[in-house]
Amino acid sequence: MTLINGKEVAEIIKGELKHKVDQFTSRGERPPHLAAVLIGKNPASLAYVNNKVKSCSQCGFRSTLIQKDPDISESDLLKLVAELNEDQDIDGFIVQLPLPHHINEQKIILAIDPNKDVDGFHPINFGKMAQGLPCYLPATPYGITLLLEHYNIETSGKHVVVVGRSNIVGTPISILLSRKGRGGDATVTLVHSRTKNINEFIRMGDIVVAAIGIPEFIKEAMIKPGAVVIDVGINRVEDSGQATGYRLTGDVDFNNVAAKCSFITPVPGGVGPMTVVSLMMNTFQAYSRKHNL
Amino acid sequence: MTLINGKEVAEIIKGELKHKVDQFTSRGERPPHLAAVLIGKNPASLAYVNNKVKSCSQCGFRSTLIQKDPDISESDLLKLVAELNEDQDIDGFIVQLPLPHHINEQKIILAIDPNKDVDGFHPINFGKMAQGLPCYLPATPYGITLLLEHYNIETSGKHVVVVGRSNIVGTPISILLSRKGRGGDATVTLVHSRTKNINEFIRMGDIVVAAIGIPEFIKEAMIKPGAVVIDVGINRVEDSGQATGYRLTGDVDFNNVAAKCSFITPVPGGVGPMTVVSLMMNTFQAYSRKHNL
Repeated sequence: MTLINGKEVAEIIKGELKHKVDQFTSRGERPPHLAAVLIGKNPASLAYVNNKVKSCSQCGFRSTLIQKDPDISESDLLKLVAELNEDQDIDGFIVQLPLPHHINEQKIILAIDPNKDVDGFHPINFGKMAQGLPCYLPATPYGITLLLEHYNIETSGKHVVVVGRSNIVGTPISILLSRKGRGGDATVTLVHSRTKNINEFIRMGDIVVAAIGIPEFIKEAMIKPGAVVIDVGINRVEDSGQATGYRLTGDVDFNNVAAKCSFITPVPGGVGPMTVVSLMMNTFQAYSRKHNL
Repeated sequence: MTLINGKEVAEIIKGELKHKVDQFTSRGERPPHLAAVLIGKNPASLAYVNNKVKSCSQCGFRSTLIQKDPDISESDLLKLVAELNEDQDIDGFIVQLPLPHHINEQKIILAIDPNKDVDGFHPINFGKMAQGLPCYLPATPYGITLLLEHYNIETSGKHVVVVGRSNIVGTPISILLSRKGRGGDATVTLVHSRTKNINEFIRMGDIVVAAIGIPEFIKEAMIKPGAVVIDVGINRVEDSGQATGYRLTGDVDFNNVAAKCSFITPVPGGVGPMTVVSLMMNTFQAYSRKHNL
């Protein structure tokens, strides 16, 4: 069994990006520049955004954090998005979700210039992904494909069972892995809450992507011996043994499943660190495209 | 075994649309208006477009056929698209594919106003479909869902095996049927040329959608007893017994498969007639939205 070390892969890719950026800046080019918009002071959102800012620094990118009060009006946020769309000094930007309830998230996402939508949330990027056209891939699915590629895990002709059909993970990864070409060409089954005999489907998977958001949902008996297990879940479960009163766990019962797998991602330290790396990759792509590099 | 009569369902839906349109025009509203752009004189394309024009008339829509020489430049076609985008009298339009080789199809599709893209080919409509947002659904997948709905064929919790991953049929129908909500909620496996043990996958399907473009690919032994079989294939095979020298056949070996199914679509007369109906439905949707009906 090989433990997939997402933290390590993330460091390697960030190092490669830094190396590329250094080459451009040494020739007098400005570095890539990511802006992040954070509304309010949700601690989880703040932690995510800070992590993105820190990753920018590790990659040699410039970053700008724009913090706004939670009572910002939708129209003021739309104005800010329009300014960022126009700002030639910014290659890409994200609006950290979730947004306060009085703001229509979909309206904000649709207002982002698709060329700067480095989160890959705009429907035009999503549609291009599904149609196999060049685009910004959504962060978590992109991170998963980078992990599979790094560990030389073949997807062509493999049966991938994706558990969960969210718009940010399950649906896009199911599309990505069944696309034509390298890193795709898999036979994909997307299972979810309405699936009958879900255990039997999961047991067929050569590769199982767990993204259903239920702690330790995937048990040992549901995994085919030698399967590759990618755990996207990040669930907080109560744990009085921890100082925080909780521990993080994935959608996979790791302790009992791991020995049965050929490869498995831990939680934390598996898919998680790759998500921000995908954002860095997309930002670099935006920068390269803009500079015709 | 029930033979799914696409021709009949198409007539019923066109009749319903005509009834709705008559109500609006009797109140003094103009009818829905579809424009179709045809480049060159490809006989198949001409037949398709004529069929669309005829369907408009059956639905009480106005239609405009714009024919251009095959040597039209890409920039002139882009100009025409821009004019149609601006024309307030036209609710939706299509550019009949394929286009001559000197024209970049993707560029033309991207130039169409997504609000008038009644073919549902623009990536933004494709992405909205995948994200479960309101959009124009691509014609053939939409037609399949209308057929399933008409025959009260439950999709929720069923295992659907989609054979073939094209951008116009296989990929979008696999996404549509696994979406949340009525007409979706299926467990979908998308199989294709790189799938190993493809026969075994197809044999698992409660519903099989054949869209691989290989005449009579699906044999009797590949079908689970009682399955629903939707045949999207339209293949010409040589047949000296026919005056034309060929006959049309689907991707399913109909004569041997039919008796084993609960429902099956014939070719022709199954999915085919529904494709143009989907276009009419989308055009009516464009009209309704524009008129806030």
